[in-house]
Amino acid sequence: MQNYVITIGRQHGCGGRIIGKKLAEKLGINYYDKNILSGLIAEDCGIAKETVDEMMEKHTSSFLYEIASFGKEGPLEEQIYLSKNKIMKKLADEGSCVIVGACADYILRDRKNLLTVFLYGEPESRIKRIVEDYKDASSMTEHRLKLVDRKRANYYHFFTTKKWGDRKNYDLLINTELGIDNVTDMLEKMAIERFGGEVNG
Amino acid sequence: MQNYVITIGRQHGCGGRIIGKKLAEKLGINYYDKNILSGLIAEDCGIAKETVDEMMEKHTSSFLYEIASFGKEGPLEEQIYLSKNKIMKKLADEGSCVIVGACADYILRDRKNLLTVFLYGEPESRIKRIVEDYKDASSMTEHRLKLVDRKRANYYHFFTTKKWGDRKNYDLLINTELGIDNVTDMLEKMAIERFGGEVNG
Repeated sequence: MQNYVITIGRQHGCGGRIIGKKLAEKLGINYYDKNILSGLIAEDCGIAKETVDEMMEKHTSSFLYEIASFGKEGPLEEQIYLSKNKIMKKLADEGSCVIVGACADYILRDRKNLLTVFLYGEPESRIKRIVEDYKDASSMTEHRLKLVDRKRANYYHFFTTKKWGDRKNYDLLINTELGIDNVTDMLEKMAIERFGGEVNG
Repeated sequence: MQNYVITIGRQHGCGGRIIGKKLAEKLGINYYDKNILSGLIAEDCGIAKETVDEMMEKHTSSFLYEIASFGKEGPLEEQIYLSKNKIMKKLADEGSCVIVGACADYILRDRKNLLTVFLYGEPESRIKRIVEDYKDASSMTEHRLKLVDRKRANYYHFFTTKKWGDRKNYDLLINTELGIDNVTDMLEKMAIERFGGEVNG
């Protein structure tokens, strides 16, 4: 069977990376997220990983931003997106995998064995999770949560022209209030049912 | 364990009723949909089932409709909604069940053991399914499909003030392009994981 890919888009603090890692482990396939990808992109483009990290969420559709970045940051960000595009397709060709974030659902949309997932949740529990699990207690508020989501939505929209989190773009949208383990198990079962018994990458 | 309820909202032609019935059968619990409920409502209100059927999708938020129906159809429709509300809560108290449509996610929103699902799909395959499975080949077009969905959305919005199909109102949104059996199996597994091994109503 051809490799399969599970992409996971997610609101900030939904446990997307935790679920993605557990899922890949259970299925015995590779796992990638923005952090891993930015390391590969940095290597590919010959620039510092820190610069890639910064650029990988930066593109907004703000008109002022467009002007401010004209001839400056814009091209580098696009270069980074193109590198990400190339690397992601190569990784998907090399073996089955779970990819969290990074517009993977869009970049890999033409693959045959693809399951696209979007995770969302209630602000209260997302804030709680960020503070507890991610050890990022630096004044996380509902307002800050919205800003991070807005950034992701803008980035996604800029490169895909589609609406982030809109059900039209996904096979499956899950509220992680159902429980991290429940959601992981459900996705595992979906992958097995969808891609056949022999799911190992 | 307290009874549990799985509600299934769905776009027209997604296979919601087929999935709901199969799911209830697999879990060994009761199954209800608009057709069954309207029979019970007709009995409760002492009016013809045909009248209930007609009223159960009729409320729109159109201003002209409001004026046209002032003091006429409006009250009866609301009476029917109130009866549905009462009957649905009673059925949920009596035993675990799957309920397709009928704003069940909203009416039962305060129940503890509740899983709210929304099913959607691509127009092409929904039209194909309506023609093949539902034997309703009467000039089903993408336009007509949209009209039915619009009707459902208006009805839902009128009584709940919420947006039909908006992920905020559901635990789980699934594109039935994944396959009727896959979706059914996944929901069965989710129910077992969510409500414990002893899921029989």
